[in-house]
Amino acid sequence: MERDRMDITLIIPIAGLVGLAFAGYLTWYVFRKDLGTPEMQEIGDAIRQGAMAFMKRQYTTIIVISIILAGLIAALIDPKPWVGLSFMVGAGASAASGYIGMYVSVRSNIRTAAAARRTLNEALVTSFRGGAVSGMGVVSLSLLGVAGVFYIFNTGMDFAISESLDAAIGFAFGASFAALFAQLGGGIYTKAADVGADLVGKIEAGIPEDDPRNPAVIADLVGDNVGDCAGRGADLFESTAAENIGAMVLGLSLFTFWTEFVPVGMRWSESDALVWIFFPLVARSFGIFASLVGILAVRLTKEDKDPMSGINMGYYITCLLAAAFFFVATKYMFGDEWQYFFGAGLIGIFLSIVIVYITQYYTSGSWRPVREIAQASTTGPATNIITGLSIAMETTAMPVIAIIVALLGSFGLGQMAAPPEADTTYRLIYGFYGTAVATMGMLATCAFILATDTFGPITDNAGGIIEMSKQPENIRRRTDRLDACGNTTKALTKGYAMASAALAAFLLFGAYFERVYMKLHEKHPTDPTITLASVFQVDIAQPDVFVGGLLGAMLVFLFASLAIRAVGKAAHAMINEVRRQFKADPGIMERTSKPDYARCVDIATKGALKAMVLPALLPVLVPVSFGIIMNALGYNAPQAVGALLMIGTIAGIMVANMFNNGGGAWDNGKKYIEAGAYGGKKTPAHAAAVVGDTVGDPLKDTAGPSIHVLVKLLSTVTLVFVALFVS
Amino acid sequence: MERDRMDITLIIPIAGLVGLAFAGYLTWYVFRKDLGTPEMQEIGDAIRQGAMAFMKRQYTTIIVISIILAGLIAALIDPKPWVGLSFMVGAGASAASGYIGMYVSVRSNIRTAAAARRTLNEALVTSFRGGAVSGMGVVSLSLLGVAGVFYIFNTGMDFAISESLDAAIGFAFGASFAALFAQLGGGIYTKAADVGADLVGKIEAGIPEDDPRNPAVIADLVGDNVGDCAGRGADLFESTAAENIGAMVLGLSLFTFWTEFVPVGMRWSESDALVWIFFPLVARSFGIFASLVGILAVRLTKEDKDPMSGINMGYYITCLLAAAFFFVATKYMFGDEWQYFFGAGLIGIFLSIVIVYITQYYTSGSWRPVREIAQASTTGPATNIITGLSIAMETTAMPVIAIIVALLGSFGLGQMAAPPEADTTYRLIYGFYGTAVATMGMLATCAFILATDTFGPITDNAGGIIEMSKQPENIRRRTDRLDACGNTTKALTKGYAMASAALAAFLLFGAYFERVYMKLHEKHPTDPTITLASVFQVDIAQPDVFVGGLLGAMLVFLFASLAIRAVGKAAHAMINEVRRQFKADPGIMERTSKPDYARCVDIATKGALKAMVLPALLPVLVPVSFGIIMNALGYNAPQAVGALLMIGTIAGIMVANMFNNGGGAWDNGKKYIEAGAYGGKKTPAHAAAVVGDTVGDPLKDTAGPSIHVLVKLLSTVTLVFVALFVS
Repeated sequence: MERDRMDITLIIPIAGLVGLAFAGYLTWYVFRKDLGTPEMQEIGDAIRQGAMAFMKRQYTTIIVISIILAGLIAALIDPKPWVGLSFMVGAGASAASGYIGMYVSVRSNIRTAAAARRTLNEALVTSFRGGAVSGMGVVSLSLLGVAGVFYIFNTGMDFAISESLDAAIGFAFGASFAALFAQLGGGIYTKAADVGADLVGKIEAGIPEDDPRNPAVIADLVGDNVGDCAGRGADLFESTAAENIGAMVLGLSLFTFWTEFVPVGMRWSESDALVWIFFPLVARSFGIFASLVGILAVRLTKEDKDPMSGINMGYYITCLLAAAFFFVATKYMFGDEWQYFFGAGLIGIFLSIVIVYITQYYTSGSWRPVREIAQASTTGPATNIITGLSIAMETTAMPVIAIIVALLGSFGLGQMAAPPEADTTYRLIYGFYGTAVATMGMLATCAFILATDTFGPITDNAGGIIEMSKQPENIRRRTDRLDACGNTTKALTKGYAMASAALAAFLLFGAYFERVYMKLHEKHPTDPTITLASVFQVDIAQPDVFVGGLLGAMLVFLFASLAIRAVGKAAHAMINEVRRQFKADPGIMERTSKPDYARCVDIATKGALKAMVLPALLPVLVPVSFGIIMNALGYNAPQAVGALLMIGTIAGIMVANMFNNGGGAWDNGKKYIEAGAYGGKKTPAHAAAVVGDTVGDPLKDTAGPSIHVLVKLLSTVTLVFVALFVS
Repeated sequence: MERDRMDITLIIPIAGLVGLAFAGYLTWYVFRKDLGTPEMQEIGDAIRQGAMAFMKRQYTTIIVISIILAGLIAALIDPKPWVGLSFMVGAGASAASGYIGMYVSVRSNIRTAAAARRTLNEALVTSFRGGAVSGMGVVSLSLLGVAGVFYIFNTGMDFAISESLDAAIGFAFGASFAALFAQLGGGIYTKAADVGADLVGKIEAGIPEDDPRNPAVIADLVGDNVGDCAGRGADLFESTAAENIGAMVLGLSLFTFWTEFVPVGMRWSESDALVWIFFPLVARSFGIFASLVGILAVRLTKEDKDPMSGINMGYYITCLLAAAFFFVATKYMFGDEWQYFFGAGLIGIFLSIVIVYITQYYTSGSWRPVREIAQASTTGPATNIITGLSIAMETTAMPVIAIIVALLGSFGLGQMAAPPEADTTYRLIYGFYGTAVATMGMLATCAFILATDTFGPITDNAGGIIEMSKQPENIRRRTDRLDACGNTTKALTKGYAMASAALAAFLLFGAYFERVYMKLHEKHPTDPTITLASVFQVDIAQPDVFVGGLLGAMLVFLFASLAIRAVGKAAHAMINEVRRQFKADPGIMERTSKPDYARCVDIATKGALKAMVLPALLPVLVPVSFGIIMNALGYNAPQAVGALLMIGTIAGIMVANMFNNGGGAWDNGKKYIEAGAYGGKKTPAHAAAVVGDTVGDPLKDTAGPSIHVLVKLLSTVTLVFVALFVS
């Protein structure tokens, strides 16, 4: 019985490999589909080339900066030089995740367009499975990466568990770091192109979306891929990696507790106690199987049904299976207290469903918020923006309340699982672990959710290809329906990502404190005042700690400012270029000559690459230099950095929610008018709504998702550099 | 020597009475000026009647709600029923402050317009002294009110110091509560009218600002008075009251320390130790004298000089005198450690100057931020908004860094002043007291700053009266110059108000902890675990405390959302009404018939009154019910509420800075174009800039200033209701 508990960890490599094999199967499934007409292929080729060219240049920049940083880490951070090395591996794996997602998505778009000529169901299945390659690939790679790095150091090189986790933290940091660049660069690219294409094309020239006469149209379609597929793929890769490792670090505390501090008679064997460290990976492994079934279940039973119903069916199947698997995993691994952790896992699964509903309320045309924005558009762009900002700020309320309930609930359940031997501090860690289990519950459906996210840009692209290659109206209607559905799923996944980040906050804070304790203990092995209890606190009543919080909140605002400005600047250049082309060659509007697509692609590429560097470095430089300075000045640097991390996280949750949901509401406010409200298209109300949609674009697709990565990066950067803040 | 220290407190009633007398003199000075032409008087009368009618209806609502709340407080909070009573007195005094400011400003506007027919200097002096009535009145009333309430309870009714302060806290809460209504109601009114007048008048009908053909023009001019004069007057009244009382509560801790815990030989006499409690009031008293001289010094030496130079001269004189008086007060009262507190006071004075410069950088047309917004306007309203949002978020960075330095500096100086007998906790309180002294330094110039703030709407109104009564161009140019100067000063005072709120944060947090300790000690007088040290902490590593912070941040966002939406809704109604009038009576545009001004005034009034109630109740209901629920559930309610207060304050600082400075930048981006950049007026760039200005209006004049009051209200509400959170 004793040895059994860890046997289940065998599932980790199996799930990782099955996930990769399944991604391979999906790729094969999509790639054998036909490529449509030569016109369609020509457009598809242009998108693919633009996207691949951007990826190449973007990752060249990322790799150069990563190598420099890896060198610094290797020089400064113990165990040298392994943290630097695993940082590079993490950055590389994150890049690979983005690349795989993109590789498949720029090939699925054309096949989805071709399938749309036949049936809606075939188009849905093609695009969804294309998206699922990314979802499965990312989650499997992250699982194998984290487990692999830990295994190599712990078993292969015989490092202690703590040191192996230090190295694994380097992996998570590398993943976050590369992801922030990818999400920022991709996000700036996509929105600069989108804003530029829309403002001149739709508003000034009066041509429809995705019209081939628009010089920025290819850049816009490329942008969907580099922003939503590659950027989001890297983002979710780093999220899962960071959360897995954070949970393992927390688990290490409980491992230590059960192997060292519990009275001898009750003590767990070392192997048994390892479940605390490995449960997160096991939970993720089961999540891969649940998502696999859910992805296969996505289909339309009838041609005239809403494609969203097919996706919802798959999602609910995934949730149910995840709950069932959680039952198995917790019962197998946690012994008598399994029901508390099972409960925490259910809270996580349930929170993900609640967030989906809240997001729909705020971003779908069926309810008050979007309709208020549409109504405000009748009095012009200014009232549209004012109302939209108000809705955007309101959207923070309900998710925060849901998160508060989920946090307190899973924390309380975790504490209940603590044995009587646990003192206050260990009860606290048990509680933190409860929130970690809830996070794992929420993330069990991650592969599925990521599939729905990447599905969005594939359908968007397919619609563009159909429009540009002048396919018949009924085919266009099919891709339009898929596209509307993709807009909803994109909003949902952003809400999901942010809520899971909030739920994961405590897990990562806990990991941070655990590391602070380890580093302090290493420096002062005999000091009896250094206890877990004395380290596990962030007392913002102390001014030096409070100012860390002030700085953390400010960092989020400054970062958002830089991300938004980058889009504004690049869009400004794009608008001027499109205007120039229309003016220089009147033949473009008369369809007698072709616009210069490549030039717009180039402007978006350059704008994105130049603008992504400063905001991406900020969340590394600020916490590290703040920690070093506070430490040098004799202040309580570990707590001050902790406050920066925690209050930065709170600010990030607020601003990202505001941006993601607000942007979605603006977008659908415009769609609501386009569907016929207030006179429909070509009215002043519609023009006002387009302004709102355009303003929302950089918020929801550049700054919002980037803040999600930023919050995670704050955690991993403080975890990696913690040794520099303690003395 | 011993008795001397408190002798200086005699200055408190003297300064209060001198301040009131000086306000009386200024009123006499302004009122004896002539009223201009009959046309001018007709317009002035319409503004005055609209403003007074709104005030009457607004304060009827406020009084009814305040009486209900006072009853609840009297029933629930000790010492009953005195806290409820002093709450009513505070609310009444706040209302009186707003009323006085308004009474004078709606009579100064016409006199400024009349003076502008003669010289710019006379117009400047008239409008500035009109504004100074409000500044002096508010600061003097607040000083007399706080000192009076404390004196009546402490000396008159023989309450203990702690109980007297409890009652005085009720006064501060009443003032905050009424101020939030006044600022919200006035802010919604002014911006609904402004947005409505601008969007239809300037953009759709193409008529200039303040054109008499615009039906909303009188409502717009009324709005300047009820929002900027009455609202801001009530706001600053409550700020000074809350900060004075918070500092006195902190002082009580040091009083207790010196009279009880210091070894007998070194102990201060009770009278001597009272300086800790009374220093804040003494510092404010000296500030009144400094401001008095500064106000008299405002004048123009040459007719062609920038009016801003005259105001700056007065400001620097006030700062220098304040520094000198601080030297006297600290040296007289604090004995051997005076230099540390003098240093802290200088930090406060210096911070106010730094904030003024930062605000000018972000909101004046001479630097990058405003110019970027103007440039982005050339590609339309969407890029204008995107760039403006980016600038708005960027503006949080520099003030936060300045505040961090000032906080740590004044805290450190305060700690240095602590005698060796002070343990860690008392050293902490000494540090808090250092930030309180810095706050007093910053607020020493408060009366002057408030004068420059109220000066803004007076000149704005004067310009409107000149325009509407068709005075010659050269006179209009004079009021335009004053108006531009007023826009700058309005932005500066908002930056000043927010920075002082941030600096005051610790003083108010400290007061909160002190009250928590007192209440716990009252409930468990013999429990040795209840110490100041155990109470003076907010450990956000505890999830129940952390969720309080999450809730506090959310509260700020939700509040901002409600405030902005109220403006959007009322503006929407206003736009429809103005459009209706233009359509129903074409004679309005041809100047053959007069528009129906009263109807627009009525729409703004109703919109403001209806919309102000929910957002104003939110910051009372949320913290109190959260505290009660957390306490009932057995969580650490005092700390959780503390986190709500502290992280709510951080979020408030961010959002208010973003709104105030962003709105100012949008406003001046438009003005920059109007001054000739990018083709000047009547270009698409100008139309785009008007959209940005309009979006910024509710941010900078409704939500931003209201958040300032909200932050203070969170402090006073938690101070008053603290007994309900402890068990």
